[in-house]
Amino acid sequence: MAGDGYRVGVLGATGLVGTTIIELLAQRGFPVAELRPLASERSAGKTIEFGSKVLTVQAVSDETIQGLDLVLSSAGGSVSAEWTPKLVEAGATVVDNTSYWRMHDDVPLVVSEVNPDALEGHKGIIANPNCSTMQMVVALKPLYDAAGIERLVISTYQAVSGTGKGAIDELRAQARAVVGGYDVPAPSIYPHQIAFNVLAQAGSFPDGDDHTDEERKLINETRKILGDAEIRVSATCIRVPVETGHSEAVNVETREPLEPGEARELLAAAPGVTVVDDPAAGRYPMAIDAAGKDDVFVGRIRRDPGNERALDLWVVSDNLRKGAATNTVQLGEELIQRGLLRRD
Amino acid sequence: MAGDGYRVGVLGATGLVGTTIIELLAQRGFPVAELRPLASERSAGKTIEFGSKVLTVQAVSDETIQGLDLVLSSAGGSVSAEWTPKLVEAGATVVDNTSYWRMHDDVPLVVSEVNPDALEGHKGIIANPNCSTMQMVVALKPLYDAAGIERLVISTYQAVSGTGKGAIDELRAQARAVVGGYDVPAPSIYPHQIAFNVLAQAGSFPDGDDHTDEERKLINETRKILGDAEIRVSATCIRVPVETGHSEAVNVETREPLEPGEARELLAAAPGVTVVDDPAAGRYPMAIDAAGKDDVFVGRIRRDPGNERALDLWVVSDNLRKGAATNTVQLGEELIQRGLLRRD
Repeated sequence: MAGDGYRVGVLGATGLVGTTIIELLAQRGFPVAELRPLASERSAGKTIEFGSKVLTVQAVSDETIQGLDLVLSSAGGSVSAEWTPKLVEAGATVVDNTSYWRMHDDVPLVVSEVNPDALEGHKGIIANPNCSTMQMVVALKPLYDAAGIERLVISTYQAVSGTGKGAIDELRAQARAVVGGYDVPAPSIYPHQIAFNVLAQAGSFPDGDDHTDEERKLINETRKILGDAEIRVSATCIRVPVETGHSEAVNVETREPLEPGEARELLAAAPGVTVVDDPAAGRYPMAIDAAGKDDVFVGRIRRDPGNERALDLWVVSDNLRKGAATNTVQLGEELIQRGLLRRD
Repeated sequence: MAGDGYRVGVLGATGLVGTTIIELLAQRGFPVAELRPLASERSAGKTIEFGSKVLTVQAVSDETIQGLDLVLSSAGGSVSAEWTPKLVEAGATVVDNTSYWRMHDDVPLVVSEVNPDALEGHKGIIANPNCSTMQMVVALKPLYDAAGIERLVISTYQAVSGTGKGAIDELRAQARAVVGGYDVPAPSIYPHQIAFNVLAQAGSFPDGDDHTDEERKLINETRKILGDAEIRVSATCIRVPVETGHSEAVNVETREPLEPGEARELLAAAPGVTVVDDPAAGRYPMAIDAAGKDDVFVGRIRRDPGNERALDLWVVSDNLRKGAATNTVQLGEELIQRGLLRRD
């Protein structure tokens, strides 16, 4: 801690998530003594706003990583693999948004409302879960605590902003072409046209796997965060032509009986959850409503007519906010509150 | 039969499905002696093309329904309720696309590749299933025959053309506003903005039901068509901003073990099915590819990692074609082949 706050680095400061992290640090009054925006060489020299200040982005280097208490990182996996250990070596605690560290045994994978105790005893690196996992486990946690979870069947409806700024531009350019009646420009971010289409591929298929890395994250991270390797998970991760806000259809088979009304009450009382569930009146969670908000929205809570031990849920959240930046900042707050920054 | 063909009426001739039916009758060389396009008063006088002919749409009335052998009907439910019995009374066999007759005990609900034998002994009315059910059961039938089906968990990604022409216009107008940066016009077809959004409501919620009528159709019609009331079904029907082509994520728990490779072979050999399943090479079924085609496309065929008795499938088809018009025309062909038109 320096002066009346912490020296906070944001790695990947110019990306969609990095920008949102910086916005949230200002909005939430995070105790910042120094904010240091870091990025690749390519983005160095750009300026970003932090509250009323204008800051210049610095290239990440052995020099620019010195003297930080906390780094909120949202660079790519390879950048994280290289720089996270160096940041820890230089004395910082790192909350990392990439998938690189998430499944390491000695790296806690933490959702602030779900398993904050996992922060205790960290070794400098804390992993922030994948967006589609994050919002789902916030909704599942109260149900898990009440009745256990035997099996999940998940289908996602994922927004393009999870892929980055280029994906939003690609969706818009394609949509403009379709409504304008001219040739749709060839995709460069996604393997196929995303505008007015649906892609049965969010992420990529590593090593001949029949599931995408996104689907594997949903399966593996859910178990790690809930601390239960017995949960059986089917995951289908689909990209839809939405800018921001992931939606998920989740079939939850509980271990003990749980009525939809009980689930609704548990969810209404859960931190970080807003229940929007009056479908006959047209009230259910929607991506365009969730965008820009921090909560996870849950609706369509009902008994699976094919399984008396299962519930169906519709879970929507801003993939850049609770799905990424909000949780990162919340973990920073939690680390401070618990006195868990490595030097304080 | 009159001359060298049949006197065929198309009720709802100006709608998206009706237009497609007429197009298919010409394309497939259906044995038509007379084609009579029928619609509501509002559409009477419009002209439609049938092959090289231009025909004038007639208002459906006690006079205009006389002397038809076969009526392919795709009007609204209330029109069907009123006119189907009158058409049968006047001597026609009716293949009806609305939900009105589907669950009647003495009305067969038929998919040409799945249960054509159900046509035998019909009483003048044959029901054409709902689009989302239709494409799914075509893909499920070979798996059902090989291994039985215990349980289905279905999430749909449904195109707007299922709702009609107005829905396509609404999606386009909203998309134009979003990419143009001006205010999105208020929706009139759907309860909320559909462009760049996802709606957890395909259909409506009747009588305080916590499932939409579309979800109930998927549950009930699947059982009726497969002739198995024991199949347990969870259904979540979602509207996505796609013009044509419904996609479905289907988790299938079979009664007997069934390997993904076996399922792929069964599907590749099944009538009306095209397997598109090389995801690492970016090959999986897509709405924009399925649009304008008659087959049901199946891919992402894989073991559910959470259930050794379950498979995950991705099923896509043109909701106006196999989901509606194609099956209607196929049933007409099947009725002729089997000598089951009421007067021949």
